[in-house]
Amino acid sequence: MSLLIVGTVAFDTVETPWGKAERVLGGSGTYAGFAASFFSTPRLVGVVGEDFPAQYLDLLVGRGVDIEGVQRVSGKSFFWAGRYEEDINIRTTLATELNVLETFEPVLPESYRDSRFVFLANIDPELQLSVLDQCDDVEFSIIDTMNFWIDGNRAALDRVLERVDAVLLNDEEARMLCGTPNLLKAARMVLEGNPKLVLIKKGEHGVMMVTEESVFMFPGYPLEHVCDPTGAGDSFAGGFIGYLAKTGRTDDETLRQAVVAGTTTASYCCEDFSVDRYGKLTLDELANRAGEFVALTSFKKLEL
Amino acid sequence: MSLLIVGTVAFDTVETPWGKAERVLGGSGTYAGFAASFFSTPRLVGVVGEDFPAQYLDLLVGRGVDIEGVQRVSGKSFFWAGRYEEDINIRTTLATELNVLETFEPVLPESYRDSRFVFLANIDPELQLSVLDQCDDVEFSIIDTMNFWIDGNRAALDRVLERVDAVLLNDEEARMLCGTPNLLKAARMVLEGNPKLVLIKKGEHGVMMVTEESVFMFPGYPLEHVCDPTGAGDSFAGGFIGYLAKTGRTDDETLRQAVVAGTTTASYCCEDFSVDRYGKLTLDELANRAGEFVALTSFKKLEL
Repeated sequence: MSLLIVGTVAFDTVETPWGKAERVLGGSGTYAGFAASFFSTPRLVGVVGEDFPAQYLDLLVGRGVDIEGVQRVSGKSFFWAGRYEEDINIRTTLATELNVLETFEPVLPESYRDSRFVFLANIDPELQLSVLDQCDDVEFSIIDTMNFWIDGNRAALDRVLERVDAVLLNDEEARMLCGTPNLLKAARMVLEGNPKLVLIKKGEHGVMMVTEESVFMFPGYPLEHVCDPTGAGDSFAGGFIGYLAKTGRTDDETLRQAVVAGTTTASYCCEDFSVDRYGKLTLDELANRAGEFVALTSFKKLEL
Repeated sequence: MSLLIVGTVAFDTVETPWGKAERVLGGSGTYAGFAASFFSTPRLVGVVGEDFPAQYLDLLVGRGVDIEGVQRVSGKSFFWAGRYEEDINIRTTLATELNVLETFEPVLPESYRDSRFVFLANIDPELQLSVLDQCDDVEFSIIDTMNFWIDGNRAALDRVLERVDAVLLNDEEARMLCGTPNLLKAARMVLEGNPKLVLIKKGEHGVMMVTEESVFMFPGYPLEHVCDPTGAGDSFAGGFIGYLAKTGRTDDETLRQAVVAGTTTASYCCEDFSVDRYGKLTLDELANRAGEFVALTSFKKLEL
């Protein structure tokens, strides 16, 4: 089924103890689009400046991402720079230049308006609302957000939450949004509103998915070497919604499979800088690693 | 099969935002003993002072723990005090009084020497070695340790590692022991030595169990309210080794079940102060919660 992704398309400069990647292809929309492309044919909405190389956009097109909705406007593209420590969980943001993102108004091409599955990456909740207004026939919508909006525009974020089916939060955001350190409690507080599904991302510790009926705990894929985790959360989201769009279902069994799909895709994202690993990734590899999770998580009933 | 547990038997004073427990029954040997008692009949080695109430020891006996190896010596019992924040992951140690532990020399009663399964909780590695020397016929041994010994008596700890089958570490200890932030890499570095099994405890995020053949990722039980996590790690260890002792097996399938047993037991530990929840816990409850993990973790093969 049709899938819409709205997010950033950006230049990233990333330093790790093992290397540096300068002004490479990045952004939440990019990562989610690449990840989703293994399962579905996502339609991407975003914005780039005059400085954005056509080759970068070609990479998206090469993976089957529809970029009709990626506007090119005058000015410079969104730029982010960060450094990771040897403990890859420790990240320092070195630069965030919004540039063309400051005046970004997402406009859906006519051909996108019938999108049934929608992922709104972490952007201004006012823009998330504007996108929802432009969609005619949403079956399942999921948003990401961040501290900046939880603190800075809670009213708009609450209006978004009244309209979407699912919310993606990292552990820190969940605690902030709900004012409780307990992640399960936080998830259940979100479920008291409109959302029927909360996904809490715990980095290397995996994901907790909570619905009214079910809790699903899923680990991160154990990688012995993480090259660059930038975009892993957006890759998870892209793989998750891409899998749902592929199947056209949102029942508990499919949602769990989508968590596996998202986690597996995100693990590849971490294996190289930018979207480089995705360029070589095959669906067979993906399926094999997704299959490895059976051995990683299965156990027999206790003898008691 | 016979099970030996060596650890502390102590007074704990614990403060949380929800209450305070003063000079209650605590200690690594206590928690591990209680947890193991649901699966096996552990033999406990430890030390208390003249001030230790007989009723506290009676609680252990009431759960079927053999306390012949718990010495009572002159002086005051080991005392620990700590405070947890609303975010229960944040703990401040307010007092640690070693008291009788300072001169503790574990002596195994004759009847303990044939123990087949052995858990050596976090004590001086020299003492762990002394216990191993007193055992005649160990089939499976597991140790816990801590930063203090990794930094302070690495030589002795290395000698212990040369002799035991399994090591229990929390994430921070694993990183420190192996000098790498990557937990899987750290586990595999430990496996290059004598141990055949590494269990990395990640608190609420669960456990990663690594052997040469297999990695098992298991989540913590999602509790909406944690009353007091003191002793959860030792409870995990006790439930884990207790289950192995019960079955008498250490194959991969049983080790995974033991992780489930340990995790489930530890979750109950967190529901009340001290060992209070264990006093009311039934094996049926335990079996039911262990069974819940099937629904919490299971998923179907992806359609790709």
